[in-house]
Amino acid sequence: MNTPISDLGEFGLIRKLTEQFAITSPNRVRMAVGDDAAILQMQPDEELLVTTDMLLEGVHFDMTYMPLKHLGYKAVVVNVSDICAMNGIPQQITVSLGISAKYTTEMIEELYKGIELACQHYQVDLIGGDTCASRNGLAISITCLGSVPKGEAVLRSGAQLNDLICVTGNLGAAYMGFQLLEREHRTFLSAPTEEFEPHFEGYEYLIERQLMPSAQRWLRDKLAEQGVTPTAMIDISDGLSSELLHIAERSQVGVRVYEDRLPLDRETLALCEEMNMSPITAAFNGGEDYELLFTVPLAQVGQVSTIEGVSIIGHATEASEGCRWISTDRAEHELKAQGWNAFS
Amino acid sequence: MNTPISDLGEFGLIRKLTEQFAITSPNRVRMAVGDDAAILQMQPDEELLVTTDMLLEGVHFDMTYMPLKHLGYKAVVVNVSDICAMNGIPQQITVSLGISAKYTTEMIEELYKGIELACQHYQVDLIGGDTCASRNGLAISITCLGSVPKGEAVLRSGAQLNDLICVTGNLGAAYMGFQLLEREHRTFLSAPTEEFEPHFEGYEYLIERQLMPSAQRWLRDKLAEQGVTPTAMIDISDGLSSELLHIAERSQVGVRVYEDRLPLDRETLALCEEMNMSPITAAFNGGEDYELLFTVPLAQVGQVSTIEGVSIIGHATEASEGCRWISTDRAEHELKAQGWNAFS
Repeated sequence: MNTPISDLGEFGLIRKLTEQFAITSPNRVRMAVGDDAAILQMQPDEELLVTTDMLLEGVHFDMTYMPLKHLGYKAVVVNVSDICAMNGIPQQITVSLGISAKYTTEMIEELYKGIELACQHYQVDLIGGDTCASRNGLAISITCLGSVPKGEAVLRSGAQLNDLICVTGNLGAAYMGFQLLEREHRTFLSAPTEEFEPHFEGYEYLIERQLMPSAQRWLRDKLAEQGVTPTAMIDISDGLSSELLHIAERSQVGVRVYEDRLPLDRETLALCEEMNMSPITAAFNGGEDYELLFTVPLAQVGQVSTIEGVSIIGHATEASEGCRWISTDRAEHELKAQGWNAFS
Repeated sequence: MNTPISDLGEFGLIRKLTEQFAITSPNRVRMAVGDDAAILQMQPDEELLVTTDMLLEGVHFDMTYMPLKHLGYKAVVVNVSDICAMNGIPQQITVSLGISAKYTTEMIEELYKGIELACQHYQVDLIGGDTCASRNGLAISITCLGSVPKGEAVLRSGAQLNDLICVTGNLGAAYMGFQLLEREHRTFLSAPTEEFEPHFEGYEYLIERQLMPSAQRWLRDKLAEQGVTPTAMIDISDGLSSELLHIAERSQVGVRVYEDRLPLDRETLALCEEMNMSPITAAFNGGEDYELLFTVPLAQVGQVSTIEGVSIIGHATEASEGCRWISTDRAEHELKAQGWNAFS
């Protein structure tokens, strides 16, 4: 099936894409898609969180590697992750799409299946958007709204001297997933055949981390359960180094993190060895892990240690001591944000 | 000055663009640009409005005609207009940009000057966004948040039988402004010289309507002053026909509007005559006027008539009577949305 989008037109397409979306929080959403604006109801004693991310074909994603359904899912996750990084609860999204002539209605429906899956998974309601033609490729712009009880939002700027630096999950896996996709694509290009099958065996987790990342929505409840109050938080989208430097700058502290404390998955280690790459580099500069990096008061070491899926990787120091990582040989190295400069 | 954006990088660019933006409503904006998400404070007894629009180079705007400062201004206005169309008060925007290699830092600063000007004019705070590279041209995605006292939001769906159909300002001017820009550009292309000067004399208002449109933020207060409660409202972005049909469909009414009631500016009439075009077609199908189309109960005819800048152009009928316009010769014509199908 290859239905040109012009058969439906803008309004027909929007109707087709959004009619199956159920509203999970009708007490919050008075009007979703279909008017000049959505109408939302806030609860008393909460604050509103707003974040937005733009994903452009050929810059943020490559249709060679990225199935449309996964792309839709990921586009929601990267926004939800920002709300989680404020210690907030994701609530609603708007989705704007610029669609070039190579896309059919069925392809955009596939993209929306991924969006819907992520909405269901994170209990987020689709409340609006804009759909238009683009001259080149696909443009996706998502805005995510969230809520947080008054006073519970966690900024990047609250880290204090001696706070513990913690991270969820593991690092570098999404980056290694991307390396694997690229390697298999190069292999295909060197001898293109119709029978080509990429070799992902043993690295399924890495592929999933790249193509279908998760937002760490669970952390908020676990921290609350243990009575842990993070002092600063950020999500890891550009790599651990870049995010540590953001927290250090905003909080006016230094940081010390330890190589032997960095959480690395065994698949990350295995592929790094196979490809002769450094897992530490993947963790520090890889990006796209969408784990949460946060600081907690030293006094809460007991509570935070009991939370499964959280690693303590270092601590905050005086700003004058700079931002450093300590390798297993006890040598000190300056942290540098070698993450992606999209404009270079 | 032609500073490549890569000299600053993403974070440097964002800082440069946003540092001069003052927050006009600090009681509403706890955190604007600079963290994972903005933090906003809602007032009790109000609802939140959310709208979003994407503008893409080569589809929604053409750099041949559109100075960057005007583009920035217009991109804000089209979003503010949607909030006004809900009877709301625009409060905050996020701005996401995809920027291709042909744009310099200075060009993006120029765009932001227009965004800032519109923010000041409509008392809207810039609270966040995303800035990234694009492969082709400029992509602008703006989300606008607004507030409305509980119960005061006006949907497209509330029009009742016999309601008066009203419109602000005048129609077709933005479309004729575009026609003029295109004519002068064709003249230039037919004999390109460095000395070429486009002829806009006598049509300055039409050019302004196209390049620097306004949102009708004033209407809300005027209606309240006169005790007028609109039953349905929409902003005119795709042309009067298309918007009338939206209200008719959503409200399940028919509409009758009268040619001799359509508000047309004398410059619109003059250029239509000069170019041998129909001002009625410009009004019905032109689009981009960003006037407000609304319905009020017949009983409020006295009050609504006293509001300067509002024209009563017709009334709502039974749905079975369809959607019609009556020409000056009393002939009836079916309303058709010949507005723009971006996907055709």
